[in-house]
Amino acid sequence: MSSKTVESSEKQQRGDVTSAKASKKEAKLQFQLKVPKGTKDWADKDMVIREAIFNSLSSLFKRHGGVTIDTPVFELREILAGKYGEDSKLIYNLEDQGGELCSLRYDLTVPFARYVAMNNIQNIKRYHIAKVYRRDQPAMTKGRMREFYQCDFDVAGVYDRMVPDSEALSILVEGLQGLGINDFKIKINHRKILDGIFKVCGVKDEDVRKISSAVDKLDKSPWDAVKKEMVVEKGQTEETADRIGEYVKLNGSLAEVLEVLKQKEELTSNEFAAQGLEDMEILLTYLDAFDITDKVSFDLSLARGLDYYTGLIYECVTAASAPPENAAELKKKKQGKEDEDASEYVGVGSIAAGGRYDNLVNMFATATGKKNVSIPCVGVSFGVERIFSLIKAREAAKTEESIKPTATQVFVMAFGGGPDWKGLLPERMRIAKQLWNVGIESEYVYKAKVNPRKQFDAADKSGASVAVILGKEEFAEGKVRVKRLGQQFADDDGEIVPLEQVVSKVQEKLSEA
Amino acid sequence: MSSKTVESSEKQQRGDVTSAKASKKEAKLQFQLKVPKGTKDWADKDMVIREAIFNSLSSLFKRHGGVTIDTPVFELREILAGKYGEDSKLIYNLEDQGGELCSLRYDLTVPFARYVAMNNIQNIKRYHIAKVYRRDQPAMTKGRMREFYQCDFDVAGVYDRMVPDSEALSILVEGLQGLGINDFKIKINHRKILDGIFKVCGVKDEDVRKISSAVDKLDKSPWDAVKKEMVVEKGQTEETADRIGEYVKLNGSLAEVLEVLKQKEELTSNEFAAQGLEDMEILLTYLDAFDITDKVSFDLSLARGLDYYTGLIYECVTAASAPPENAAELKKKKQGKEDEDASEYVGVGSIAAGGRYDNLVNMFATATGKKNVSIPCVGVSFGVERIFSLIKAREAAKTEESIKPTATQVFVMAFGGGPDWKGLLPERMRIAKQLWNVGIESEYVYKAKVNPRKQFDAADKSGASVAVILGKEEFAEGKVRVKRLGQQFADDDGEIVPLEQVVSKVQEKLSEA
Repeated sequence: MSSKTVESSEKQQRGDVTSAKASKKEAKLQFQLKVPKGTKDWADKDMVIREAIFNSLSSLFKRHGGVTIDTPVFELREILAGKYGEDSKLIYNLEDQGGELCSLRYDLTVPFARYVAMNNIQNIKRYHIAKVYRRDQPAMTKGRMREFYQCDFDVAGVYDRMVPDSEALSILVEGLQGLGINDFKIKINHRKILDGIFKVCGVKDEDVRKISSAVDKLDKSPWDAVKKEMVVEKGQTEETADRIGEYVKLNGSLAEVLEVLKQKEELTSNEFAAQGLEDMEILLTYLDAFDITDKVSFDLSLARGLDYYTGLIYECVTAASAPPENAAELKKKKQGKEDEDASEYVGVGSIAAGGRYDNLVNMFATATGKKNVSIPCVGVSFGVERIFSLIKAREAAKTEESIKPTATQVFVMAFGGGPDWKGLLPERMRIAKQLWNVGIESEYVYKAKVNPRKQFDAADKSGASVAVILGKEEFAEGKVRVKRLGQQFADDDGEIVPLEQVVSKVQEKLSEA
Repeated sequence: MSSKTVESSEKQQRGDVTSAKASKKEAKLQFQLKVPKGTKDWADKDMVIREAIFNSLSSLFKRHGGVTIDTPVFELREILAGKYGEDSKLIYNLEDQGGELCSLRYDLTVPFARYVAMNNIQNIKRYHIAKVYRRDQPAMTKGRMREFYQCDFDVAGVYDRMVPDSEALSILVEGLQGLGINDFKIKINHRKILDGIFKVCGVKDEDVRKISSAVDKLDKSPWDAVKKEMVVEKGQTEETADRIGEYVKLNGSLAEVLEVLKQKEELTSNEFAAQGLEDMEILLTYLDAFDITDKVSFDLSLARGLDYYTGLIYECVTAASAPPENAAELKKKKQGKEDEDASEYVGVGSIAAGGRYDNLVNMFATATGKKNVSIPCVGVSFGVERIFSLIKAREAAKTEESIKPTATQVFVMAFGGGPDWKGLLPERMRIAKQLWNVGIESEYVYKAKVNPRKQFDAADKSGASVAVILGKEEFAEGKVRVKRLGQQFADDDGEIVPLEQVVSKVQEKLSEA
């Protein structure tokens, strides 16, 4: 679906709301209480799962020597211009309110290259976990969103061929395995090989990027549709298209496909393709050193949409990545409702991807009057929402009981009654404060007088494993009760200790928990 | 400086760039390589310090039973409308590209209230650490930025009066003390007392909020200027202004000021003011329970700019919060350059603030056709960039040597030479992979052949404390050397172990480090 359709149907939707507003029946409905299309709130257990993904990936990135940076969520509009090819139409712009013209970042790669160029950095391994923005058709339950997180690791600097590239692939494997995802495949290809193929098949230099964009659609569209795009829309001959078709259907193990391509003299005699084939040969050794050869498949139909790649490219897919088999049929049912969520008829897509981009830093340097620099880069990006949707589906099969959104360990309560009973609220506060001071997560009910049942309910909800109980009589003697919480401790009365020992007794009980 | 001035001067600036582009001399300079005004990149040690602040605050919030949520960076424009009073002009809008009209969030409070209303939540303690956006005059070295982080803790739900309010103040104190900031003062006031004062001084109901906005400027402007704004711009009589002036100059300990106000019959007989005074009386007990009474000062000139507050309000200041004494003079020097950074003549401002807002959730519920709900809220927000600027100033005095942006522990090297020497790169990779597999942060130089000096330099830069060295002869016998790094181990040759023991030997050496 084209971006134009998205816009016009959304405008229409807005119009509908306006006319609804005018109708008497809904006069009170001034606006809808919702988040913007393609975005969502994260809370509760989802948030716990997502934070676990972030922690796992940032440990991974640190393990590989990464340092982290943070860039602004918007960049000057010129910084993003001309970097994303046909996808540029999906960039969110900020309104011109005076001052600089800005756009929300579309990925973390372009801001990284801007950062490297701006600060004259010669080499860096950086990781960055942050949100990016794309005005795309959302498929929320498949983790395709307009606001989503990327977790990127990139290496900038002049190094020996394919060394950081192979480490990026190893990071990809380690990252997914570390999250318990094992049934994935990494498709790899090389822009220079692809460009060489286009050239030897008869594509003119100026058409190479747009033919590459057409090939990029092969994961969603059949060959016939892609061929039609090449011939009808993009002016290639039938013969050129067919010859490209022969190449891009090749896939298999890196060694296998490499062997096939090395036999094609038209290709090995093309300068670009030859360089690419040499890179792939070197990669073979390093993938073996990292013991990840079996995770990788050389797939000549992989093109990647972005303009800036110059060498090795890769994309990681799982069984859930592809659309359902009857996708076309499901999509047809939604005719006229194209602006709605596409989850029913799309797949999760790639869950991680990346590649080499050797000219991006230099583009920034030269476009801003600095001297020519050569800061080649390679990187890998994990799509957190998509990975989340896989983990979530897996967790849904199990019980989620063990995931607890609060960290609360102790609940401070007071029991008593009678006409003079005030509920010992300041006293509960005082004890909570003592526990906080030594770093113990503690809560109490925010009410002066509250019955034991409600306090136990609140403790239960908080997930606390220890209670401090201020009994009316005991407390009058300067003593409190410390007891374990939970079904199996229902008959355990705990221990009564003097007030000054409450912290140490709580620590003791917690260490048993 | 008014927002209009900001806009026009920035537009002019943009014009300048365009005309510069036309000039022949700078024909190559297509755009400036910079981040948008009021934003910055974070990297290296600054990033380490900032992450430490986040960790400290999120532990604090969890200690108090908080759960975390994440909301989109932009909201539907209607959600933000009418919530921020005179500050609304500082909101960033997204361009109308078709679809919904959206704006970047201005704070985390309004999105939180929207979330609570939308999900019919009855009570929650939530924390949220995220970026917010304000088109304000930046003062970068003072931590006043257009994109900045807020760290918020808010409690929603019906509870006993002033209980969550006092805990919010305790969190404020614990949060700053946990970051090593001890020389601060929390100014508190109460919107109902303030509104009562305005009423008894003769301000009409419809003028109360704009007079409150005028009072809010007292931390930056002298009384005379504020009085003039009330009389000339905001239509109050001289007498009303003077009477307000008498009240708002009151400040001191909570108990003291409360005593003075309780003597004023005109105030105690005003319904709103009486409620506010009662709240402050209750607060006194709880602040004592939390042992933070001495951190708080009751300051009637504190008004807070935002429209949505309904009860207790507070703002935390340090010595660095106020502008320099000769601010007016410094500002005058910048005449005609008002759009530039204001760091020279402004202070850090408040480093944390918050208050009670009892109607915001209900505003969302009723504006969207839901039934009336009463979900009172109170919260506290830490300004991370401002706190960072204080910590940074403090750290600058000490040595920053101990802060290390990478986590690297082990560096894998190879030493050798001669015509057959290839550098053992795949072998170094294989060992690094084994170390990564057990969670050890490891690096190696991304080059096949590299001399020992360069490898030691790289290890030094990474901060690794242990080296694994593949010596040409030793490695041929299946052995590697494991040694400690650092000045004091210069003469320590380490130990030679068989290849299969490298991981355990590294673990042993690391445990000694």
